[in-house]
Amino acid sequence: MSGVEPVDWATLPPRPCPVAGSLDLLGDRWSILVVRDVMNGVRRFDDLVTRLAVSRATLADRLRRLVTAGILVPAPYQTDGGRIREEYRLTEKGWDLRNVLIALREWGDRYVLGEGDTRLRLVDRETGHDVRLRLVDAETGKAVEARRLAHVTDPAARPGRRR
Amino acid sequence: MSGVEPVDWATLPPRPCPVAGSLDLLGDRWSILVVRDVMNGVRRFDDLVTRLAVSRATLADRLRRLVTAGILVPAPYQTDGGRIREEYRLTEKGWDLRNVLIALREWGDRYVLGEGDTRLRLVDRETGHDVRLRLVDAETGKAVEARRLAHVTDPAARPGRRR
Repeated sequence: MSGVEPVDWATLPPRPCPVAGSLDLLGDRWSILVVRDVMNGVRRFDDLVTRLAVSRATLADRLRRLVTAGILVPAPYQTDGGRIREEYRLTEKGWDLRNVLIALREWGDRYVLGEGDTRLRLVDRETGHDVRLRLVDAETGKAVEARRLAHVTDPAARPGRRR
Repeated sequence: MSGVEPVDWATLPPRPCPVAGSLDLLGDRWSILVVRDVMNGVRRFDDLVTRLAVSRATLADRLRRLVTAGILVPAPYQTDGGRIREEYRLTEKGWDLRNVLIALREWGDRYVLGEGDTRLRLVDRETGHDVRLRLVDAETGKAVEARRLAHVTDPAARPGRRR
């Protein structure tokens, strides 16, 4: 016995929710798709407009919000014509959205795409093996089945350790 | 070395995107928060209204969408007064959104909540150990570092294929 006493959500006092907070900071569908594209190396305004098929005004607004949120940083680059333009790069905070994007992709691959749709594979470039998101024991690294999950309160709990 | 040839996003032909598709099917912030609460055992309309502090019209709309999307199913229950009401349960498709919610929570714990905010711990109820989302090799179960990730198109490389 581990003495784990799961949270009773019905009686849990109000507290800031990290899920709601993340959604508020991220913004809407467009913001998440901008993060997806920048993660994939599409960093310039005109390229983002083309790939997303979004209006320039909407894209400019979402880029501003993502910069304000500390998820993207503008970085100047010089065009062939010698003009200085800006492209966008992810901060560490932005890169750490990786699992959110991959979780959405794994779910979409299973439940949204059709039989004949092209799926991309996420692989380890050194071994070629498929890579998946898994819930693992933080101490042993072993997979944990969903039915064994529980939330517990811990006033001393700290933000997740970096790996 | 392994024959992995990463996708060039700039030249990738248009295809249905599983991330965009997931966001379209899920809907907005409210839908995701409804899934969060139902996952935590808050299943009845009035309890959801209270916990989410959302209007009844908005909640009814999001529940309808989530049922149409095959994420929730209504299930009748009998009140103390003997009336039949409906509560909402997750389908397998709905439960499979677990990683999306946990990824948002892990990011929010790190980047959205403040130092003094209460964090819940997600644990293995049998061992009490913390549980985390990790990117792992689908064959060996071992953690894969983010810098080793690559997307490949499916017919171009098979699992374990070497060149």
